[in-house]
Amino acid sequence: MSRNLAVSAERIAADIDALAAITDPDRPWTRRAFSDLFLEGRAYLEREFRAAGLETRIDTAGNLIGRRIGKNRSAGTIMLGSHSDTVPDGGRFDGIAGVVVALEVARALAEAGIELEHDLEVTDFLAEEVSIFGVSCIGSRGMAGIRPDEWLGRTAEGMTLAEGIEKVGGTPALQIARDDIRAFLELHIEQGPVLEGEKLDIGVVTAIAGITRVEIIVEGRADHAGTTPMGRRADALGAAAHVVLAVETLAGELAATPGHFAATTGEFEMWPNAANVVPSKVRMLLDIRSEHRDDLGEFLSALSSCLEGIALDHGVAIAPPRLVSDNPAMPMDTLVMATLDAACETTGAGHRRMASGAGHDAAFMARIAKAGMVFISCREGRSHAPEEFAENADIALGAEVLLEAVKRLDMEL
Amino acid sequence: MSRNLAVSAERIAADIDALAAITDPDRPWTRRAFSDLFLEGRAYLEREFRAAGLETRIDTAGNLIGRRIGKNRSAGTIMLGSHSDTVPDGGRFDGIAGVVVALEVARALAEAGIELEHDLEVTDFLAEEVSIFGVSCIGSRGMAGIRPDEWLGRTAEGMTLAEGIEKVGGTPALQIARDDIRAFLELHIEQGPVLEGEKLDIGVVTAIAGITRVEIIVEGRADHAGTTPMGRRADALGAAAHVVLAVETLAGELAATPGHFAATTGEFEMWPNAANVVPSKVRMLLDIRSEHRDDLGEFLSALSSCLEGIALDHGVAIAPPRLVSDNPAMPMDTLVMATLDAACETTGAGHRRMASGAGHDAAFMARIAKAGMVFISCREGRSHAPEEFAENADIALGAEVLLEAVKRLDMEL
Repeated sequence: MSRNLAVSAERIAADIDALAAITDPDRPWTRRAFSDLFLEGRAYLEREFRAAGLETRIDTAGNLIGRRIGKNRSAGTIMLGSHSDTVPDGGRFDGIAGVVVALEVARALAEAGIELEHDLEVTDFLAEEVSIFGVSCIGSRGMAGIRPDEWLGRTAEGMTLAEGIEKVGGTPALQIARDDIRAFLELHIEQGPVLEGEKLDIGVVTAIAGITRVEIIVEGRADHAGTTPMGRRADALGAAAHVVLAVETLAGELAATPGHFAATTGEFEMWPNAANVVPSKVRMLLDIRSEHRDDLGEFLSALSSCLEGIALDHGVAIAPPRLVSDNPAMPMDTLVMATLDAACETTGAGHRRMASGAGHDAAFMARIAKAGMVFISCREGRSHAPEEFAENADIALGAEVLLEAVKRLDMEL
Repeated sequence: MSRNLAVSAERIAADIDALAAITDPDRPWTRRAFSDLFLEGRAYLEREFRAAGLETRIDTAGNLIGRRIGKNRSAGTIMLGSHSDTVPDGGRFDGIAGVVVALEVARALAEAGIELEHDLEVTDFLAEEVSIFGVSCIGSRGMAGIRPDEWLGRTAEGMTLAEGIEKVGGTPALQIARDDIRAFLELHIEQGPVLEGEKLDIGVVTAIAGITRVEIIVEGRADHAGTTPMGRRADALGAAAHVVLAVETLAGELAATPGHFAATTGEFEMWPNAANVVPSKVRMLLDIRSEHRDDLGEFLSALSSCLEGIALDHGVAIAPPRLVSDNPAMPMDTLVMATLDAACETTGAGHRRMASGAGHDAAFMARIAKAGMVFISCREGRSHAPEEFAENADIALGAEVLLEAVKRLDMEL
């Protein structure tokens, strides 16, 4: 597909390649938040932000921001952004594409001589991925004023999180929620196979699915594997296998109804895990993503009934599922979604509405601004892996949609 | 139950209590082979062997042996024994009961003034349990001349197995299979719930079940747990759950046919084992115990068919089961079994024939002697745990059966 775009696909490709080169050479692509490589990536971005005419700063939460002043100083800010940190052995696009297109929108506006009513800010959020401190979305939580104070004392690699934020230029003691941001837009790779499967360019995100983590523990009885007859065992693994299949079945049923739903038994540990002993205990951690809160409730209640049945059938004990963490879904703003739909139409991008199964900085920005996201397709839905890939033409088309949406929002807001 | 016995229940209880006191005080009951505590236990046994009139020695394989000379120097040896080492946090009876009753039979013979035709030897085999060197039945394999030479170089806790055997008084370089042993008898706790459930005193063991270990690896695809739709996953855990249930079902069917059969998924490991990633790989290790070799073949062939179906249904790869180790069943001697049945009748002990699901020194002694085992019941079938328990009256009755069997074998052989 060749289109006549106001944004430059070449500049986008050059930025993505330049950032890809800033990686741990032995583990491409790895540029974890708080590392020296991360600061090197940020130095590249800051130079490019400045070259695009943006005024740069690190906010107190540790985010890198480039600002373009608008005509109307009281209109507030339209913000675009994502993150430049990666998971270990991650890809070249997760987060990075969103920062690069935000920068490209600023460049394209300058090139076209367009002055906005609003200030425009391009943001590289600090530590969106789960960081060495075990927590994620540190920068966007900070900007929204909801980064827990107790996180600052977490330590990793010989520093506290507070010291980590200082290392990148932030001021952790000063957490102030921004109240001037009128709209926030984030482009991101889908990290799933839907757009590629349907040959669509853009997903307009309706909500960031809630993420709920639930622990299930099955307790049976350790017995000698050689001498205990098959019918006289309380095998925790056999019961846990039924739990795994119940999770799969129930999640499949809810996934077939409207609204994103997925449940995964992501952690599974067994004791004593010795060849000649009947398993006595299994711990499972479920990851449940739900766009609609009702689905979560229905899932947990159906699962609890299943667990009771499984426990009875297998002579084991299964406590009710224990909630480990629960972040409800965050809907995107209806005006922003409508604007993104319209921008897709203007740009000629094939599009659909869809929920995000993954968490994003936009979920936290939605607490302080009208927020929206656009997804672009990625190969085979792969991400958080070196094979992660997005076509540069798709990224550029996404940038064009963002540019169009920014121009519209500047008038609509 | 109160019976008039030729053996002394009091002496048996005193020996078991004395050995129980020789334990790591923080982990009762722990007296692992090659440790200083193990040598302390042996010193106790050696004193008691001598007090019973036995002539003691450590053989080249590291076994403690007490001998009572028979009338006919060319008749050969009748041997009784088991092992005094324990698993970590083990019980007070597994192995120990067998050594103590062997000693008590020698005492009872002396007390009754009975001279046998055969030499009688009472043996405490070295390291029947899986030792710090990762291998088991070191003493009985050595006595049978089949301890692999390459084992001697294994190291643990700063010593080689060769040094360990020297530490207990053996001569590892000299491995000579005994050819003078006419019969070997071992008493052991059942380690299963059958005798207790049927309120029987004695199990006359028909065979030591074969132990076969098989590895199964399921390979799926790691995907983002939030963004990958339920229907588009290759979840290794879901497929592995079906494997676990297939193992359970197939083993249950074979267990319902004549001959001992049990299969256990004892080891289960999953990758990447991260909450937000669809499981990509599972490794399982199966422990299969079979009295009849045909059952093993039928099980593995049915399981292989199941694996193919599961792999197809779930879009994962499952290699055919890989044989990790395979020790066929060892039948006990028919003359010895008949003698033990008769001894039970004479003694008034309720008895049945049964296979041993667990491995024992008797499996190796059966290669060089007519071997047999008697099981006594243990509480709830528990063993290899601190809760392991056997009633002293049951142990004493087992000793009486052994005494009667020795007297009969001395004439029959």
